[in-house]
Formats: sequence, structure tokens, C-alpha cells
Amino acid sequence: MSLELWLVIFAGLVAVLYGLFTARGLMSASAGTDKMQEIASAIQEGAQAYLNKQYTTIAIVGAAVTVLLLLLFSFDPVPAIGFIIGAVLSGAAGYVGMLISVRANVRTTQAASESLGKGLNIAFKAGAVTGMLVAGLALLGIAGYYAVLTGGFGLEAEGRRVINGLVALSLGASLISVFARLGGGIFTKGADVGGDLVGKVEAGIPEDDPRNAATIADNVGDNVGDCAGMAADLFETYVVTVAATMVLGSIIFASDIAGIFMLYPMAIGGVCIITSIIGTYAVRLSKGSTNIMGALYKGLIATGVLSVIGLALVTAWITGFGQEYIVGERSFTGWSLFFCGVTGLIITGLIVVITEYYTGTGYRPVKSVAKSSESGHGTNVIQGLAVSMEATAAPALVIVIGIIVTFNLAGLYGIATAVTTMLALAGMIVALDAFGPVTDNAGGIAEMADLDPEVRNTTDALDAVGNTTKAVTKGYAIGSAGLGALVLFAAYTEDLRHFISEPETYPFFANIAFDFSLSNPYVVVGLFIGGLLPYLFGSMAMMAVGRAAGAVVEEVRRQFREKPGIMTFEEKPDYARAVEMLTGAAIKEMVIPSLLPILSPIVLYIVVGIVAGPSQALSAVGAMLMGVIITGLFVALSMTAGGGAWDNAKKYIEDGNHGGKGSEAHKAAVTGDTVGDPYKDTAGPAVNPMIKITNIIALLLLAFLAGLGG
Amino acid sequence: MSLELWLVIFAGLVAVLYGLFTARGLMSASAGTDKMQEIASAIQEGAQAYLNKQYTTIAIVGAAVTVLLLLLFSFDPVPAIGFIIGAVLSGAAGYVGMLISVRANVRTTQAASESLGKGLNIAFKAGAVTGMLVAGLALLGIAGYYAVLTGGFGLEAEGRRVINGLVALSLGASLISVFARLGGGIFTKGADVGGDLVGKVEAGIPEDDPRNAATIADNVGDNVGDCAGMAADLFETYVVTVAATMVLGSIIFASDIAGIFMLYPMAIGGVCIITSIIGTYAVRLSKGSTNIMGALYKGLIATGVLSVIGLALVTAWITGFGQEYIVGERSFTGWSLFFCGVTGLIITGLIVVITEYYTGTGYRPVKSVAKSSESGHGTNVIQGLAVSMEATAAPALVIVIGIIVTFNLAGLYGIATAVTTMLALAGMIVALDAFGPVTDNAGGIAEMADLDPEVRNTTDALDAVGNTTKAVTKGYAIGSAGLGALVLFAAYTEDLRHFISEPETYPFFANIAFDFSLSNPYVVVGLFIGGLLPYLFGSMAMMAVGRAAGAVVEEVRRQFREKPGIMTFEEKPDYARAVEMLTGAAIKEMVIPSLLPILSPIVLYIVVGIVAGPSQALSAVGAMLMGVIITGLFVALSMTAGGGAWDNAKKYIEDGNHGGKGSEAHKAAVTGDTVGDPYKDTAGPAVNPMIKITNIIALLLLAFLAGLGG
Repeated sequence: MSLELWLVIFAGLVAVLYGLFTARGLMSASAGTDKMQEIASAIQEGAQAYLNKQYTTIAIVGAAVTVLLLLLFSFDPVPAIGFIIGAVLSGAAGYVGMLISVRANVRTTQAASESLGKGLNIAFKAGAVTGMLVAGLALLGIAGYYAVLTGGFGLEAEGRRVINGLVALSLGASLISVFARLGGGIFTKGADVGGDLVGKVEAGIPEDDPRNAATIADNVGDNVGDCAGMAADLFETYVVTVAATMVLGSIIFASDIAGIFMLYPMAIGGVCIITSIIGTYAVRLSKGSTNIMGALYKGLIATGVLSVIGLALVTAWITGFGQEYIVGERSFTGWSLFFCGVTGLIITGLIVVITEYYTGTGYRPVKSVAKSSESGHGTNVIQGLAVSMEATAAPALVIVIGIIVTFNLAGLYGIATAVTTMLALAGMIVALDAFGPVTDNAGGIAEMADLDPEVRNTTDALDAVGNTTKAVTKGYAIGSAGLGALVLFAAYTEDLRHFISEPETYPFFANIAFDFSLSNPYVVVGLFIGGLLPYLFGSMAMMAVGRAAGAVVEEVRRQFREKPGIMTFEEKPDYARAVEMLTGAAIKEMVIPSLLPILSPIVLYIVVGIVAGPSQALSAVGAMLMGVIITGLFVALSMTAGGGAWDNAKKYIEDGNHGGKGSEAHKAAVTGDTVGDPYKDTAGPAVNPMIKITNIIALLLLAFLAGLGG
Repeated sequence: MSLELWLVIFAGLVAVLYGLFTARGLMSASAGTDKMQEIASAIQEGAQAYLNKQYTTIAIVGAAVTVLLLLLFSFDPVPAIGFIIGAVLSGAAGYVGMLISVRANVRTTQAASESLGKGLNIAFKAGAVTGMLVAGLALLGIAGYYAVLTGGFGLEAEGRRVINGLVALSLGASLISVFARLGGGIFTKGADVGGDLVGKVEAGIPEDDPRNAATIADNVGDNVGDCAGMAADLFETYVVTVAATMVLGSIIFASDIAGIFMLYPMAIGGVCIITSIIGTYAVRLSKGSTNIMGALYKGLIATGVLSVIGLALVTAWITGFGQEYIVGERSFTGWSLFFCGVTGLIITGLIVVITEYYTGTGYRPVKSVAKSSESGHGTNVIQGLAVSMEATAAPALVIVIGIIVTFNLAGLYGIATAVTTMLALAGMIVALDAFGPVTDNAGGIAEMADLDPEVRNTTDALDAVGNTTKAVTKGYAIGSAGLGALVLFAAYTEDLRHFISEPETYPFFANIAFDFSLSNPYVVVGLFIGGLLPYLFGSMAMMAVGRAAGAVVEEVRRQFREKPGIMTFEEKPDYARAVEMLTGAAIKEMVIPSLLPILSPIVLYIVVGIVAGPSQALSAVGAMLMGVIITGLFVALSMTAGGGAWDNAKKYIEDGNHGGKGSEAHKAAVTGDTVGDPYKDTAGPAVNPMIKITNIIALLLLAFLAGLGG
């Protein structure tokens, strides 16, 4: 095993250790009054109970998939073990993130009662723990399993079994991710929407009022959806991107240099984890300033600048700057790869800026949504939808330019390098995001524990920034999928080519001739079916939230009716009942939509296979991968940006604009916010793992066919 | 000139004559009281003033395009004249449709005061006039120009100049269509949304109340948007489909049989015009029945069944049933083509059924939106959006199955035959649709003329059906674009192939080698940029409606303020002022979004051309055509179905469900309806001509490049 690989694993360990030490430091902070702790422990119990149940359900599906993998790959344990590693580590990142988050919330409330800076510090540190665990565990999983397979078991680095292991590891991560995103998303938005409807609208009590039986569930939702769900999502994005880059490197390069290009993405991941950790120390409010976004930007910019240096070091070491490499008719140098990586960092920066423009309260889009609220609910929603659609244009253009630039620099591997570098910052980006649910909870606890309104104002200021950073992460995740579209597709195509080129080893592919041209009708069929998936999936997710919210409304109404003392603060509502009910609903609702991306490639393969034979079936499945990314990109970008804009338009009005709280404009803005909730926190973000899982299932389908006898 | 071609032209003339005679019959019906006629003439004046101004603006753009065509094609008059024919006939169909519609409305009110059956009769006849004019003029335009070029001027049927003429004719139709759809859509929904907001919501007066200065504008909008705009849209869809099928026929078949396959689509159009006319006589309420949809279905089913017979006759005559034809490696017979046509008819039927399911008040989707209104504005919108996204799935599957079936029957030309047959029913489909705005107006007139509420109930019953038939037409138009995607793309590819095969004649193409494979990054770039267009275009359209509605609100508020007598019926509001203001707004707002699909292919060609040369530029432009169809299909289907569902959910509540009129649920449903308005009547339907225009500009770009010297 090479020194470089050891260093990569070491970087992953550093991230995990950083997480553990930071977490210990966090726990030593004051957890506030007894009442605050009581509320916080209700949230902790609810979140833990939900995740336990969610992971139990996923474990059942996971066990079935493990058995299936063993059967499909003739009892080769490599894919099955890879799958388990991916699933377990993804689950661990989300679970530990939740454990930290539910403990940091109350400490943030306490710290916010002292100063904004202290509140920011606790909340951001909590986010950073989750962030580093996500990046660290993901890198450890990939590099560790790769090291064991190539070092321990002595498998050929670029051999099929290693590739199958990596793809199966991605499947494990993706499977957890789609369930966690959906289940968590349905839970959190069911509680949020339902709680708001029955509390704010019907009973006329404020948000997070302790009389509302759904408040604890709402706070639980932040932790299991926005924190654990998001962690699983980014874990998956990271793993799939690095693995796809490695698979591509292993296939397109000659076997004597393939190892270099499998190592390179891992090395980028390793060095950027270190720069991300350093970057977290740059997050600090300037003296007397209240510019929270500015403080976070300092950390991001520090990480970005250091990453350029780190990227240069890695390139010099692994590929060499001047060394020329040849792939097909194209040649490129280490310099080209370096610039691809830098392009990835620039794309990340641009997506952050664009997302802030579309979701920040200081710019035209959010202001226009707020303004349109003056003429009513309908115009607020119309303007919000229009903004959500417009918000797809700039990121799409950035992605397109990224594809053109990096492809011209170093071909497909250049694109892959850019995406990998983008994702290598995941630790920092997740830190910015996971900070959101902590501050959201902190505000809820302040309200329920009846603290000074000033505390709530401080946590609200943190929370408004959280809305933007949450939108940024989603834009970043889906943007990387868009940029990585060609890489994922290339992994499929090159795999297919490889199997076809060795008909003796892979007899199934003896007579296969695929045709990915747009003039092939089966390609168009695949594009349409792929394009349909995000729409159908999104629809299912939104309806699930609607149903869950409806159930919450019923439950809270029942409690108000049966315990009339709740409204007069004489009786306590049964918070646990609401949490339990939502747990059941979310877990039931997450299963069917999650099966959609898993089964679709298989069904399409079988149907087209029957009509037109396996060649066209494989062409259609390939096109489906592209179709799901094309509409998925626009659906996800519009939903996440639109949801953020609606949410902050409401906050902008609450800050005293257009009539302020309680005005007609505010009521309209609350409607927009409600619509935006499942848009931005359930359907939109879940599209990202959905895209990946479709791709990975397709790759596994190929691997399975390759194992078939003649 | 062949007998067959004469017969086709004769069929077109029959349709136009049918329109003129039916119109004369309509005019002889009673136009009601003086007050009704006064209101109707205000609508007439407004609609005429608007269309005059709209067509003047389009004429300026059209004149510029004509000059440009002359310059680009070295002063060959064939494309320029084709363009003018397409534009003028499209404008004429819309204009005459509007003229009938604004006169039939008041007559429908009068007839509805006698009986439901009589109201239906007048309204449907008015729609049928527009429908037959659309189909008749479209067919006359194509067949007539083809006859003149091949017969009169003796040009080779399958030669480049004839093809250029047909493509330019399509451009004329598309250009009018995108402007008319957008301008009319912005006008009608600006008036509708703005009028509702300031009247129903702010002033608390009912819809169509004569005190609201926007009421006349609202009724004008129905005629210029839902009638004239829709007519231009379907005219364009018809022309583009038939022309693309003819172009495909001329290119892919050997030159001795190409003429047959250029004639075949025109002949289908001719025979189906006759069956559509016969079908209109089958539309009749059964004695004592109030099943309006059933009455309309009778006409549609009669047309469908007769068309199968007509299709068989045409096939037997033109291609022969048993005759075998060979294209590339594929051979097919007349039977295959016949079954492709039948498939097109079945697809039309399925789209009608699916649309009725998603927008009719009797089924789950609309009921679920109505139910969700009980818990508030937010849940109504969430459920509506979810339904809108779900509603794309079944049509997309139908289209995919249609592609597979017809391609396997007779290759690309089989798909083209199916789409042509689908569109050949346009006369009947437009009749069903154009009936909607007439009944909508009739209701408004009944309200404003203070007639017995029973009359309004009768017109409302007609109008509810109109919501579904309007959604059907849009689904049908966009569905045909989806099914025709491959045909449009094939026209581009085959054209490109043709030019490349003759480098001596077309020196520009001497070194061009395109690559439409999904693994070409420029193809992915094209797919993303194409995919972006419907989103950006939709966003612009929605924002334009928002601005226009805002201006209406201001204007009506001003009138209430300055003329306090309006509310007490002592003063008359200044209706003309509102119409004028909206006219200005709509025409200003329609220009920029319309330029988007016109300029995008050109800009993409230039940008990719500079970066990667003309071969990749042409590949990217080709992929863009596919990208715009993929997202365009889903955006348009979801918007039109969702809008219809919201509208009818409101109507369902108004019928006394979930609390009925005035309940909280009803208020929430009004919000959904407002959101659905620009969705279904502005942005959604305008996507269809937008897709086509992108395709046609791309074809013209090729033709222009072909004319370049070496």
C-alpha cells in the first residue's frame, strides 16, 4: 500500500477525530435552565426514537439488498461488503450528526442569551462536527475499502471486482440517503406545515408555542430531516462522485497509469478535508459586527484559497505538473487537471453567490416575492414560482460552462476532477448547512422555555442565514450532479464498452451494440422516462407531506378538544404522541417513492428488452440516466431556490417591511412559506439521491449482466 | 398537379366554406336585450383594438424577418413568400375566430336563457367555426403553396427550394403563434388575476360585477387569449407537423417515391377535415340530459371512428395497403402506415381521457385539491402542485408507448404519420376548446346584464366543461410535440446528413461531422441549454402576468378612488381605460420572452462554434432541440393540467362541497385558481410554440449555412 493512500486514510481519521474532540468541547458548554434541558431532552428522545425506527426499516431493506447482491454476484462477498460499508457509514454520519445537533441546540440557545457571537460559535461548531464526519467517514470508507481490497486481498486496482466493490459501496450510501432524505423530509415538513396550520392559522397561537402538541415534533424534524437527512445526502454525493471518478480513471487509462488516476480523487478529498478543518477556525464574527453570513464566508473563502494550494501540492505529487498523459486522441498534463480542480472550486463559489442572490433578503428575487404578497396569497405564490423557475438559469449556465472548460482541459476525466474537487469541500459546506437546524431548534427552545424575546431575536438572525446556507448546500449537491452527469453516464458507457470488448469473458455482451445517438428512438424513450422520474417522485413526496401534515392537524385538534386545559396552560399536550404518529407516517410514506428510482431502470431494461432486444434496452437505460439528470436538475434547483426565497420573503416581511407581522401581506407570505416547505426540504433535495441511485442501479445492472453465463 | 392534391385543396376549401356558412347561421340568432348588446359591443371593440395592435406589432417583426429571409437566401422569394403565407393565414385564423367568438358570446347568453341545449349549440358552433378555419386554412396554406411551387413553378417536389418554402411557412405560423399565445395570455390572465384581486378580494364584489373596471378587459382577454391565441397555436402545431412530415418524407425516401410520402400527410389532413365537419353534427345533448361533456364526446367519437375509415381510404389510394416500401434497412407496407395513423387517433383519445381524469370534478385529483383547501391556502397550493407534477406521468408514458409502437411499425415516418393523424383532428379539437371562451364570456354578460341567476347557472355548467376541454387541447398540442420530437429532430438530422453528403453543392458542410451521442459533452451542453429554455420562458411569462395584474389592480383602485359613484352604481367605470392599459402591457411584455427561442439556437451555435468549431456547434444545436422538448413537455403538461385542476377544484367547492362559496376552503381554492391562471393560460400553453420555433430556427440555420459559399 502506497504512502499516498496511507495519507488519505490519515486525513479521513483526522476529520473524525476533529469531530469527536469538537463534540466533547461542545458538550462542556452550559445547557441552560432546567426547563430548557427538559425541552431539549424531549427533542432528543423523539429524534433518537425516529432515527432508530427509520434505520431499522432501512436495515430490513438493506439486508434484502445484501442477500440479493450475494446472489447476483455468485456469492462474491466484495460487492455485499462494500454495500454494507457504504450503508453503515452513511447511517453513522447522519446518526452522530443528529446526536450532536440535538445537544448543541439548547447550548446555542444558552449561548445566544449571552451574545450573537457565542451563539454562532456553538451552532457552527455543531455543524462542523457533522460536516467533518460526513467527509471523513466517506473518504475513510472509500479509501479504506480500496486499500483493503488492493492491499489486503491483493486485487488488481483497476480490476472488475474492485470496481464492483466501489459501486456497491455507493449503492449503500445512496440507499440510506434516499430513504433518509425522504423519511426525514416528510417528518420535518409534516410537522412544520401541520403544526403551523393548526397552531398559527387555526388556534391563533404563535409558532413554537408550547401549547401546540406538534412543536416538539417540529424540532425533532429539524434534526432528523435537515441534519441527519442532509448528512446522508452529502455523504452519498461525496461517495458517488469520488467512486465514479475512480471507476472512470480505472477504465479509460492504460492499466499502467490507471492507479494514479484512481488515487488522485482520493488525494484531493484528503487534502481538502484538512483545508476544511482549518477553514472552520476562520469562521468568526468581526468585533461588533452582526454580519453572520460574512463570518461564514470567511471560513468558506479560507477553505477555498487553501484548497487551491492543497490541490497544487496533490497534483505535483501524484500526477506531476508537466507530465503528459494520453487518453484516446486527447492528451493533457497535470496542469490541466489542476485547472479543472480550480474550476470546480470556482463553480462552488458561483453557486454560493447565485443561491444567495436568489434566497437572500437583500436582493431582487426575495424582495419581489415579498412585494407581491401585498396583493394576496395568489400573487405571492405566482411570483415565488416564477422566481423558482428563473433561479435555474444561472446555475445551469455555470454547469454548462464548467463542462465546456473542463472537457477542453482534460476530457471526461477533467470534468470528473472538477466535480471531485467541488465535493471535496463537502466538510465545510455541510458545516454551513448543519448549522441551520441547530439554530432553528435553538429558537424553538427559546420560545418554549419562555426566555427573553431578545434571545429569540438572536436565534432568528442566525436562522435567516441558515435558510440561505441550506439552499446553498442543496444547489451545490444538485449542481455537482449536473456537472457530474457526463461522468456518471461515462461510467456507464465505458463499462458497457469494456464488457463488449471482451466477449469471451462476458458472453452476455457478445452481440450487444449500443447506440446513444439522439436519433435512436429508444434513446428518446429513455430520455422521456428518465425525465419523468423527478416529476413523479416530486409529486409523491409533496403528497406525502400533505398527508402527514393533515394527520398532524387532526392529532393536535384532537388534543385541543380532549384536553381543554392545554390552551390555558393548565394541561401539557402529549408531544410524544405527535412524534410517534409522524414517525409512523414518515416511514410508511418513504418506501414507495424510494422504490421508484430503484425499480425504474430494471423495468425499463426488461420492457425495452422484450420489445427490441438487449442492445436497445441498454441504450434506453443509458439515456434514462441522462433524462433523469436533465429534468432532475431543473426540478431540484427550482424547488430548493424557490423554497428558500419564499421562506426569506416571509422573514423580510416579519422584519417590518410591507406591513410587517400580522399584516395581510404577512399572511400571504406565510402561505408561500408553507408551499415552499415541502418544495425545499422534502421533494427538491431528495431528487439528488434519486438521480444517483438510478445511475448506480444501472451500473450494477451491467455488472450483473456481465456475470451471466453464455 | 395530381387529382389527389386537388382533392386536398378542395377539403381545405370545404372547411373554410363550412366556417363561413356556420358563422352566417350564428349571426342570425338573437343577440338579446339592448343592455346585453351594449356589453357585447364593448367586448368586441376591446378585442378588435387589442388584436389590431398586436398584429401591427407582429407585422413589424414579420417585415424584418421577411427582409432577413430574402437576404439570407440570396433573394430567393420562395422562403419569404412561404413565411408571409404562414404568418398571414395564422393571423387570419385567429382574427376571424375572435370575430365570431365576440359575437357568439352574447347569443349564447340569450340561447342559454332559453335552454342548456340551445346554449351549447350556439357556443359549440362558434367553436367549430374557429376549428374548421384553423384546420382548413392550415391545410390550404401548405397544400396550396406546395401546389403552386411544384405545379405552377415546376420546382422538384423533393427539392431544397420546396423544403425551404415549407419550413419558412412553418416559421411564419410559429412566429405569430408564440407572440399571440404570450400576448393574449398575458392580457387575459393580467385582467383575470388583477380583476379578481381588486374586485373579489379587496372590494368584496362578485366576479364579473359591472362595477369592476376590469370586467370588460377580462372578457376581452378570453377572446384574444383563449380563442385567438389558441387558434394561432393549433394552426402552428398543425402546419409544423404536416410540414415536418413532408420534409422527412422528401428526404428519407428515394426520389421516385418521395412524392407519395409528401402527399400522404396532406391527404390525411384533407380527409380528417371532412370527418371533423361531419363530427360536429353529432354534438347534441340527449333529450332531458345535462351531460355536456357527453354531448361533446359524441362529436369527438364520431370524428374518430369516421377518421379510421377515412384513413383507410387515403392509405389504399395513396400508398396502397399491400405495397412494400423500403427505407434504409427497414421495410413497411401501407398497412403499417394505416396502423400508425390509428395509433395517433388512439393517443388522442387517451390524452383526452387522462386530461379529463386530472381536471374533471368527478375524479380523485380535483377532489384531493378541493379537500386540501380545507386546511388552508398553503395545502391547496401544495396539493395542486403535486397533482400538476403527477399529471405528466400518464401522458409521457402514452407518448413513449406511441413512439415504440409506431417506430416498430414504420420507422421515423411511422411516428410522423401518427403525429400527423393526431393533428388532423385539430378542427374538431379546436372546436371543443374555442367553445370555452364563448361560454366564459356568456356567463360574464349574463352577470353584467343582470339577467336571471338561472342563466348564469346554465352558462357556468357550460364553462366548467370548457375548463376541461381547454386543458385537453393544451395536452393534445404539447403531446403531439413530444411524440413529434423525433420527427422534428429527424428533420434536422436528415437535413444535416443531406448537406454533408453533397459537399460540392454545399461547401460549408465539406468538413462537418456531427456526433449526437450522449457521450459527446456538447450534446449534454445542448440538452441542458435546451432544457433551461422552458423554465426561463415560463418564469418570464409568469412574471409578466404578475406585473400586468398589478397594473390592473392599480388602475381599478384609482377608478374606485376617483369615481366614488362606481360602487353605488351611480357612475360607470372606464372599461376602455383598463383594456387600453392591458393592451399596452401585454404587447410590451410579449416581446422579450418571444425572442428567447428565436435567438437561443443562433447564440448557442455561435458560442459553441467559437469554442469547438462548427461540427460540435451543430451537434449542440441538435441536442438543444431535444432538450427543449424534454423539459418543455413536462413543464407544459404539469402547468396546463395543474391549472385546470385548481380551477375546477374551486368550481367543485362552489357547487357546495367542503363548505361551498364563501367558506375558508373556498378562499383557499380561489388562491389556487389564481396561481393556476398564468400556469394554464399563459406560461404552459406558450411552451408549445416555443418548442417549435426553436426547432424551425435550427432548420433555417442549416438552410442558411447551406447557402454559404465555399
